[in-house]
Amino acid sequence: MERQIYLENKAWQEALELMMGRLAYTCFPENEKVDVRKALNRVTGETVRANRSSPHYPASAMDGYAIRAKDTFGISEREPRWLKWESEAIQVDTGDPLPADMDTVVMLEEVLEQGEQGILLQNSVVPWDNVRSVGEDIVEGEVLLPVNHRIRPQDQGALIAAGVLEVTVRRKPRVGILPTGDEIRSPGTPLEVGDIVDSNSTVLTSLVEEWGGVGTIWPITADRPEKLENALLEMAESQDILVFIAGSSQGRDDYTSRIIDKYGAVYLHGVAIKPGKPVILGEVHGKPAIGIPGYPVSAFITAQLFLEPWVKYLLGFIKKTPLTLDVVVTKKVFSSLGSEEFVRVKVGKVGERWIATPLNRGAGVTMSLVRADGILRVPRLQEGYHEGETVPVELLRPVEELGETLVCIGSHDLAIDILSSYLKARGKNESIASAHVGSLGGILALRKGEAHFAGIHLLDPETGDYNRSYLERLLPGRDIVLMNLVYRTQGLMVAKGNPLNLTKLEDLARSGIRFINRQGGSGTRVLLDYLLNQKGISKEDILGYEREEFTHLNVAVGVASGSADVGLGIQSAAQSLGLDFVPIGEERYDLAIPAEYLEDLKMQALISIVHNDAFKEEVLSLGGYDVRDMGKFIR
Amino acid sequence: MERQIYLENKAWQEALELMMGRLAYTCFPENEKVDVRKALNRVTGETVRANRSSPHYPASAMDGYAIRAKDTFGISEREPRWLKWESEAIQVDTGDPLPADMDTVVMLEEVLEQGEQGILLQNSVVPWDNVRSVGEDIVEGEVLLPVNHRIRPQDQGALIAAGVLEVTVRRKPRVGILPTGDEIRSPGTPLEVGDIVDSNSTVLTSLVEEWGGVGTIWPITADRPEKLENALLEMAESQDILVFIAGSSQGRDDYTSRIIDKYGAVYLHGVAIKPGKPVILGEVHGKPAIGIPGYPVSAFITAQLFLEPWVKYLLGFIKKTPLTLDVVVTKKVFSSLGSEEFVRVKVGKVGERWIATPLNRGAGVTMSLVRADGILRVPRLQEGYHEGETVPVELLRPVEELGETLVCIGSHDLAIDILSSYLKARGKNESIASAHVGSLGGILALRKGEAHFAGIHLLDPETGDYNRSYLERLLPGRDIVLMNLVYRTQGLMVAKGNPLNLTKLEDLARSGIRFINRQGGSGTRVLLDYLLNQKGISKEDILGYEREEFTHLNVAVGVASGSADVGLGIQSAAQSLGLDFVPIGEERYDLAIPAEYLEDLKMQALISIVHNDAFKEEVLSLGGYDVRDMGKFIR
Repeated sequence: MERQIYLENKAWQEALELMMGRLAYTCFPENEKVDVRKALNRVTGETVRANRSSPHYPASAMDGYAIRAKDTFGISEREPRWLKWESEAIQVDTGDPLPADMDTVVMLEEVLEQGEQGILLQNSVVPWDNVRSVGEDIVEGEVLLPVNHRIRPQDQGALIAAGVLEVTVRRKPRVGILPTGDEIRSPGTPLEVGDIVDSNSTVLTSLVEEWGGVGTIWPITADRPEKLENALLEMAESQDILVFIAGSSQGRDDYTSRIIDKYGAVYLHGVAIKPGKPVILGEVHGKPAIGIPGYPVSAFITAQLFLEPWVKYLLGFIKKTPLTLDVVVTKKVFSSLGSEEFVRVKVGKVGERWIATPLNRGAGVTMSLVRADGILRVPRLQEGYHEGETVPVELLRPVEELGETLVCIGSHDLAIDILSSYLKARGKNESIASAHVGSLGGILALRKGEAHFAGIHLLDPETGDYNRSYLERLLPGRDIVLMNLVYRTQGLMVAKGNPLNLTKLEDLARSGIRFINRQGGSGTRVLLDYLLNQKGISKEDILGYEREEFTHLNVAVGVASGSADVGLGIQSAAQSLGLDFVPIGEERYDLAIPAEYLEDLKMQALISIVHNDAFKEEVLSLGGYDVRDMGKFIR
Repeated sequence: MERQIYLENKAWQEALELMMGRLAYTCFPENEKVDVRKALNRVTGETVRANRSSPHYPASAMDGYAIRAKDTFGISEREPRWLKWESEAIQVDTGDPLPADMDTVVMLEEVLEQGEQGILLQNSVVPWDNVRSVGEDIVEGEVLLPVNHRIRPQDQGALIAAGVLEVTVRRKPRVGILPTGDEIRSPGTPLEVGDIVDSNSTVLTSLVEEWGGVGTIWPITADRPEKLENALLEMAESQDILVFIAGSSQGRDDYTSRIIDKYGAVYLHGVAIKPGKPVILGEVHGKPAIGIPGYPVSAFITAQLFLEPWVKYLLGFIKKTPLTLDVVVTKKVFSSLGSEEFVRVKVGKVGERWIATPLNRGAGVTMSLVRADGILRVPRLQEGYHEGETVPVELLRPVEELGETLVCIGSHDLAIDILSSYLKARGKNESIASAHVGSLGGILALRKGEAHFAGIHLLDPETGDYNRSYLERLLPGRDIVLMNLVYRTQGLMVAKGNPLNLTKLEDLARSGIRFINRQGGSGTRVLLDYLLNQKGISKEDILGYEREEFTHLNVAVGVASGSADVGLGIQSAAQSLGLDFVPIGEERYDLAIPAEYLEDLKMQALISIVHNDAFKEEVLSLGGYDVRDMGKFIR
C-alpha cells in the first residue's frame, strides 16, 4: 500500500523530519492582519515597513533659537551680528518643531547676548545643526521588522511611531485536541472506581498556548471507531494540527493508527522512548495528526517532542534546543538499553556543586512533573549514568531560581511544607525543594553533599536520646548543627471511629489486622522496631509488616482507603485524612544543618521563619505538635 | 510639610525600597478564585492542597491476575496450587482497578500454568505487590503547590488529577496608564507638525501584560491641572498602580509631581539616569504612583526599573536580575560622570568572541530598542568603557538566538534587508543584524573581528576598479572573499517632477541648491568626491556638503521632506520615497567575507539565498539594480 509509511525502526527525529518535509506546503495557515496594539507576541507573516518617517517633522534637538544658517554667513568674533526676533530668530525648546523657513538651531550657550531686538551671534553656523531631521529614527519605507519575528512591546512602539496600525501576522496554529477512552471523565465529574479524570487535554491546551497556538478541546470520545472517525473528520475541517490522546489502557493506540491510516498516512507508530512509547505520527487530509499516549507524564514529554515542533513550525520557527546545565547525578540512574529515557530530576546547588536527584519514574506520577526542575535524557544505547557522573540536564526552571532553592532531604513532616510556604511568601524567589527518603536517607544526603539540611527523628535505643548519636556515627568529624523544629506525637492511625478497637501496639499482632509500614531507615520504622523489641512482639506476627510506604500521608491514605487497618505515624497526618489516632509517644524532630550552610542567606531566612510566632501557631493548628523548643539549637 | 519626602540626592534603588516598604500593606490586591483550566501563568495566592488522592482506587500496575495474598500462603515449588477463576483469580491489565476483595497482582510470567479452572502458582505472594495503591501519586490533603507559584501546564494537570477545580490566585495587578500632553495623539490620528503619536501607552500595556498585570490606557489628557487631577482620582478608584506618562517637553513632570503631592506623597523626583531623568515615585491614596518620562526609550527603560518591580511585587515576586552575558565592547563608550547610563547594544558572536556594538543613544530613537540585543549599564561614577573591555550586558534576547545571528557591518543597501528577510523566512532562527556605518567602517569592523561580513562599494580612483584594492591595503594578509551582490545605479535624488531641473553633477554647485551628503568613509561619498574631482567642482561651492546622513534612505527623506533639494544615492532609495532620480553611473556592491566564516552554516545559508532566483527577482523589483554577477566570487 503506497500510503503505508511505517518507520518503526527509524529514529523518531527522522520520522518527524520526513513528516515535516511532506506536509510543509499543504498545512501552512494563511496569514491574518491584526491591530498593532493587540499584536504582542504574534509573529510577523511578512516584512514590515514604515508607513511614515519619524520624526515626521524637523524638530529642535536643543533648547535655543531657530535661525537660518545663511543669515549667519560672514559673522565672526570680530564681526558679531544681531538676528532679529521673529524674522531671523525664534526661541525653541527641545522637541519643538523647527519653524518654517528656519534651517538650524543655535544653543542658548552659543548666544553672546540677547535683547529686545534679537540675539547677538559671534559665529556662523551650518544648516541642520542641532536639529532632529525628518526620519532620524525611522524613514518611510524602511524595514522595521523581518518576517518570522515575534513582536515585543518595543516593536509595537516602533510600529506605532512609523504609522503602522495593522500588521500581517501568522495566524495562531489551531490544535484540535481529542481525548479518547471509555474510562476518561471531564474534570469536575464525580469519579467511580476505574474512572480517570482528563487532565491531559488541559495540559496540552496550555502547552500549545505557551508555544503560540490555540488549543481546542473536543468532547471526550468513547473507544468506538465510528465515533473516533467522526471526531477526527470534524477536527480536520477547522484545525491545523490534529491531536488524539489515547486512554491509558493497552492497545488503544492501534485504533487511532488505523483511523489515521484510513484517511491519510501513518509515518511512525511506536517510539523507543520512555515514558511515551505508543506515539503515532501521521497525516489526515494533508494536516499533521499526532497520537499522544494517555499517561500524564508520557503525554507531557511526547507533546514537547512531537507537537511543539509543529506548532513552532507553523509559526515560522524551529523549536529551540532547551537550555541545559551540567549537573552531578547523586545516584546511579539505570535505564534499559534500546529506549531513550527522559528522567525527571530535581536540581539544586549545594555548596559549589549543581546536583540532580532523579524523581519517581512512573508514567502516571503527575507530581514528578510538578517537582521536576529538569529532564535528564539517557540515550537509547546507554544503560544509564554512574553516581557522581556529570551530565547535561534540560532545565524546566530558570537557573537563577534553582540557585535560590534550599534542598531538604530526609524525613517527611507537614511542618516542612508550611516552612516552605512561609519562605515562598517572603516573595524573594527563595524556596525549599524537599525529598522524602526518611531520616537515615537524609543523613546520607548530607554526607554526600546533596542537601542543605535534613529533617530527622532517629531514636537511639541505647540512650533514649534523638539524632545526635546518629550524626556522630554517620558523619564523624562533620560540624552539624541540630535545630529543633517540633516534638510530635506518634501513634496508631486507624479508621474513623476505630471500628476494630485498636488501642495499643500489641493489637498490631492481632489475627487479621492489616498493618501498613514505613520504609527501612525512616525514623518511624526505627521507632516501631524499638517498640516491638521492647514489648517482645515478633515482626512475623504482624500482617503487612513488609508493605512499605515512604511518607506518613501515604500510610494514612492506605488506612483511609481501607486497604489497611492501621499504621504507625504522626497525628497531623491522621488528622489530615480524617482518621482516628491513638497516641503512643512523643518524639523529637530536628533539622540537621551542616555548619557551613548557616551563613547562607536562604538558610538565615529559614531560621528566622522558625522563630516566627505566626509560623508556630500554624504548625500547632495541624494537631499533635509541641513547639516548646522550636528553633532551639541542640547539643 | 510631613508628606514631603523628596530624596533627590539618594540612589533610586533606595527610594524604590522606601516606597515599597511604606506601601506594601496598603496596596495589596485581594486574591481571587479561578477555574484551574484558566489558571495558566496565574500566581497562587495560598498553598494549594489536594482534594482527593490519585490514583483514587487501587489499580493493577502490571498485566496479570488479581488474587488475595492469603490464598497463596503455603504455596511453594514443591506444593503448587490452583487458584479458581472469579472467586480466587481475575485477569487484569495494567491500569485496571483491583477487583474488590483482591489485594495483590501476580504477573503473567509468574504463573506456572493457566487452564479452565484457574491459574497454577508455585510461590506465595505478599499483599499489595504490583498494585498502584491509592495516593501513590497524590495523597488527599498533600501540598501540591506553594504560595507565590506561577502555575505551569504540568501544575494544572496535577491540580485536576487531585480534584482541585478552583484555585486561589493573586488578582492581576491593575495598572492605570495615563498619557498626558497637549501634543500627544492616539495612534491612527493624522499627525500635524508638532504632534506626537502615543506609542508609549501601548508599550507600557504590553510590558505590564508580560509581567503578569493588566494595563488599562486612560484617554490622553491635556496639560491642565484640573484634568490631570480628575484622571488621577478616577484611576485611583479602580487601579492598583497609577502611571503618568509625561509628554516630551520640558518641565511637564513638575505638574505631575505637584498633583501627586497634593493627594499623597512624592518620594523621588528626578533620577540620575540616562535616558530617563524626570522619573517620579510617589503614592496617591496608598497606591503607588509613578511618573514615566515621555521619550520612548526613557519610558521603556524607566518602566523596567520602576514599574516592573511593583507589578511583580503585587504578584508575590521580586523582579529577577536580568541575565547577563560578558561581551567585548567594540568601541569606546563615553558616559558622563554622575549619571547611570543605559546604553542599547547589538550583541553578536563573531568567531569565538561575543561582541557588543553601541546603538544610537537618543532617547527618542525607538528603533534602537527594536535593534538592541541588550543593555549595557554604565555606573554613575564611571566615565564609560574602553574599547576592547569585557563588560556584562543585560540581555534582551535569548543567548541561543544571538548565536544564530550573522553580523553585517558596512554600507547600507536595501538588498541586505531582503537578504535578511529571506534568511528569517527559512524558519531556522538564523538572522542578520546589520549596522550601517559605510563601506570603510565595514572594512574596519572586519579588521577588528566585529562582523561576519561587510557590504562595500568602494571605487578605487586610480584603477576604476572596486573594493579589492581597499581590502589589500586595509586588511593586508587577511584572506577575504568578495562575493558580488548587485550592480546598482547611483544618481541624483530630486523632488518628484524635478522642479529645479537638476540633471547633472555640475548642478550641485548651482547657487541656492541645497545638497544633502553622506558621511565620510561611505562608498557614496568616495564616489562623490571622485566625480567632483574629475569634473573640477569645488566642495566649497556646494551648499550642504557638510550635512551628513548615514544611509541612502536618510538622504532620500531629506529631499522628500523638502529640507534639501538633492542628494547622491541609489535608485531604489529614491524610488522608495517617491523621488525622481537622475542616473549618474553604475557601481559594484560586494559582500566582503573573511574566508574563515565561509564554512559557518549561517553563512552557507546566506550564500544559497544569494543564488536563489526568487531573491534575485525581488531585488530587481526595487529598481536600479543589475544582478548579472549576483553570487559570483570576485578576484
